[in-house]
Amino acid sequence: MSFDWSKRGADKRIRLFHSIPEEWKLRTYYRRESNVFNIPTECGKLSAEELSITNSTASDLVEKLSRGELKAVDVTVAFCKRTTVAHQLVRCFHEFFPEKAIAQAKELDEYFEIHQKPIGPLHGLPISINDQFRIEGQEASMGRIAWLGKYDTTESTLITLLRKAGAVLYTKTSVCQTLLSGETCNNIIAVTSNPRNNAWSAGGSSGGGRCFDRTPRFSTWGGSVRVPAAFNFLYGIKPSQGRTPHSKMANSVEGQETAHSIIGPIAHTAADLRLFLKAVLSQEPWNYDPKVIPLPWRSSEEDIARSKVAGRLTLGYFYSDGVVNPYPPILRGIDEAVAKLRENGHTLIPWRPYKHAYAQRFVRIMYTADGNTGILNSLKASGELVIPYNKRLLRSTKGHLNANQLGEVQLKQWEYQRKYLERWRRFEEETGTELDAIIAPVAATAAIRHGKFRYYGYSSVISLLDFTSAVAEYDPEVYDGAPVGLQVIGRRLSEERILVIAEEIGRLLGNSQTP
Amino acid sequence: MSFDWSKRGADKRIRLFHSIPEEWKLRTYYRRESNVFNIPTECGKLSAEELSITNSTASDLVEKLSRGELKAVDVTVAFCKRTTVAHQLVRCFHEFFPEKAIAQAKELDEYFEIHQKPIGPLHGLPISINDQFRIEGQEASMGRIAWLGKYDTTESTLITLLRKAGAVLYTKTSVCQTLLSGETCNNIIAVTSNPRNNAWSAGGSSGGGRCFDRTPRFSTWGGSVRVPAAFNFLYGIKPSQGRTPHSKMANSVEGQETAHSIIGPIAHTAADLRLFLKAVLSQEPWNYDPKVIPLPWRSSEEDIARSKVAGRLTLGYFYSDGVVNPYPPILRGIDEAVAKLRENGHTLIPWRPYKHAYAQRFVRIMYTADGNTGILNSLKASGELVIPYNKRLLRSTKGHLNANQLGEVQLKQWEYQRKYLERWRRFEEETGTELDAIIAPVAATAAIRHGKFRYYGYSSVISLLDFTSAVAEYDPEVYDGAPVGLQVIGRRLSEERILVIAEEIGRLLGNSQTP
Repeated sequence: MSFDWSKRGADKRIRLFHSIPEEWKLRTYYRRESNVFNIPTECGKLSAEELSITNSTASDLVEKLSRGELKAVDVTVAFCKRTTVAHQLVRCFHEFFPEKAIAQAKELDEYFEIHQKPIGPLHGLPISINDQFRIEGQEASMGRIAWLGKYDTTESTLITLLRKAGAVLYTKTSVCQTLLSGETCNNIIAVTSNPRNNAWSAGGSSGGGRCFDRTPRFSTWGGSVRVPAAFNFLYGIKPSQGRTPHSKMANSVEGQETAHSIIGPIAHTAADLRLFLKAVLSQEPWNYDPKVIPLPWRSSEEDIARSKVAGRLTLGYFYSDGVVNPYPPILRGIDEAVAKLRENGHTLIPWRPYKHAYAQRFVRIMYTADGNTGILNSLKASGELVIPYNKRLLRSTKGHLNANQLGEVQLKQWEYQRKYLERWRRFEEETGTELDAIIAPVAATAAIRHGKFRYYGYSSVISLLDFTSAVAEYDPEVYDGAPVGLQVIGRRLSEERILVIAEEIGRLLGNSQTP
Repeated sequence: MSFDWSKRGADKRIRLFHSIPEEWKLRTYYRRESNVFNIPTECGKLSAEELSITNSTASDLVEKLSRGELKAVDVTVAFCKRTTVAHQLVRCFHEFFPEKAIAQAKELDEYFEIHQKPIGPLHGLPISINDQFRIEGQEASMGRIAWLGKYDTTESTLITLLRKAGAVLYTKTSVCQTLLSGETCNNIIAVTSNPRNNAWSAGGSSGGGRCFDRTPRFSTWGGSVRVPAAFNFLYGIKPSQGRTPHSKMANSVEGQETAHSIIGPIAHTAADLRLFLKAVLSQEPWNYDPKVIPLPWRSSEEDIARSKVAGRLTLGYFYSDGVVNPYPPILRGIDEAVAKLRENGHTLIPWRPYKHAYAQRFVRIMYTADGNTGILNSLKASGELVIPYNKRLLRSTKGHLNANQLGEVQLKQWEYQRKYLERWRRFEEETGTELDAIIAPVAATAAIRHGKFRYYGYSSVISLLDFTSAVAEYDPEVYDGAPVGLQVIGRRLSEERILVIAEEIGRLLGNSQTP
């Protein structure tokens, strides 16, 4: 019985392997330490057209699909193939259901045939989602053995809206055992590796939601969008709470209102992130999820940001949060962004981070307010081992808080947020201009070896503040090819503006078209 | 020692009495059961001009003040006088500081003299706030003996913004001992009575924030805006969470994120409510309080509602929530509103309330999640008696919830909200039109005798849903002159639309100009 969990994990691993059609299976073994980034191109499993499709941006694909120049089925097959290759190289999914995906794509093609127009703004675009989302008939194990074998009978709100918008669902990507992690490791797939180096982590908690192709992906919370984006040379945006729907999802601590789950996309370009957010908002998610704010995409906010990009942005920046100093490649990344922005006539002023160490105390308390009983019970249910990486985290728990204690923590959090806003306002009063964004590290390091991610502060404090934050990329060559991410932080619910600024920073750093 | 609390309450009561200048004190005794509504006019304390000022709408006053046709000092003195008369008749305030108010008004007049323009959209308008708001140098006892004698050194965010907008602060109105009440009763002022009948309650928890004059007032949570509005023939609006700032206020259960405090205005016309919300939003409260959504006043939403009012509104309505049937006057109120709206070409369709009894279980749990320790400790600190009205409420506590239990409640709440939205959507799918609002009772009764308010369900379930709700009035003559309120319920954050609809309903019921 005691090793039953291990068998169940192995069983799932095997089932995943069998979900890959025989003809898509790789016959070569790739050792650790190797860069497998180009294998999808070189392995011969994808045709030239399929490679072209899977190398396209989502925006390009949607345009062609909506004009009938591409068929949803062809695009779907191409992505299914590429994803299976990826999984065999870095173990990136927990669910894979190509038949359902192809059936859905066929329906979309039929719709197009009849109506000669797309069904919605994402017509025929395959989108991968992480394993927190529920899809009827699929498991949502979130990497926990106890939750294997439970097939969902309901669908997460975002999935419903993505389908309405025309997106094709085909895989659910890997997440960390506890979700609360900057890497992706569990007792089913072991680890999700970084395609640029198999010995590196792909980041987490939703490490599977990255790599190898250009479709947008969805992920959640804290650093779970930003860290994988940063570790994989991708763009990501963590919207503020209430911008995207997260109802009817699986989660680590359901129902808590202290540290909110937030869904955000990861993609290869800022334009694809925008495509994605606009498509979701066009479905009026506030009519489905009561936590979503009825705030349609505001083009007027984009226009303001664009005119500032063309004129003069006022940006704050910091190298270190005063707790853990980032590694030199990160510092160089900030330096380069600041220099390029100044060259282009923008105003850059150092920002003094306000009590980030203090803020992280809250983050820790908030993450563990239930004494980790939610996570621990779900692990105990199968008897599975806590992965080494999470032991430290789970040890740090201070035990269960009661309603009053929770209220005190939440009150202090609000007070901290308020003081941060006050700083922001004071900065503006002193400089006489609006502070458009703050540029900061996403993490203290670039992509790192499995099991070595330690410090969440750069992403978690921004989550605590509920600020909007987008990740743009700095040249990956500087640090053994390991991607280095910068975050562009805006006030709460400033997604439209922040994406424009992140796009500009990416452009200045020469990344806007990088694969 | 055991009766010390009683002395401290009496001391405060006397201090309040002494805060009234000698020449404003009434020399006549008014017995219970009497209608004192016209005393301010008849008592001879206010000049004809002062009566005219205090009978004006806030919108009229602001217009005249902003053109220099009225002086802030004269308006302030007039309101101070009228409020002192009111307090002597019904005991409606916890704080009164005319000298500070007049000094502030003088500064505004000087500003106008120099700049020949108003300082902000509320230039010179006296506004009363309830005792939850903090003002430097004043007590914020919230009707609790233990909190007497503590003079605030900080200011609530709303107060700061009101001052910036030009409003004059002069009094803090009475609230109930626990806040969680549909009446206003505590060991300082005893009860706040209804000016139409001294034996009736003025409603609560912020019963003091009503009566006798036409300035807007601010109040909070559950039925705390709507019930006093309904019991006093006033308009009120409970915005959705995140529309108005409530940081740095005193509260019953600070820091809890389960049942949110919400600030809303009470006034004599819908236009005055609008004036108020627009003025607050014009100060960009989201830059001060992190919980406020950056959502400026949307005239476009008003335009949509106005064109529907001129064309055809689709409205749901219900008489009873299926738990407690309202008294006949309330039913007649709904009937009349429905009939008048139909006569005017609008579509009225019965709405089936969804599980309101179930929802109220959550409300009870949420209100008492801390086992009422917050309230009980603040009462114990002085040893004061729990007012009879609140005993039942405090007995009903199920004890302290822990983080997991709280999470479960919050999850069910979210689920309930989601299902209610689904109903709303299904209604729209079935009828093929947008459901603009739902008309419903505010309470099961009209204004009632002190100590008799029992059933909160009509207001609290709408608060649980975080729907926007405005109160419009039905002819008070039908029920011995007791005001009967209707609420106009809109989806979350629909303040602009709901005010237009409430205004139209008030107009159809012939109330828009009623004092």
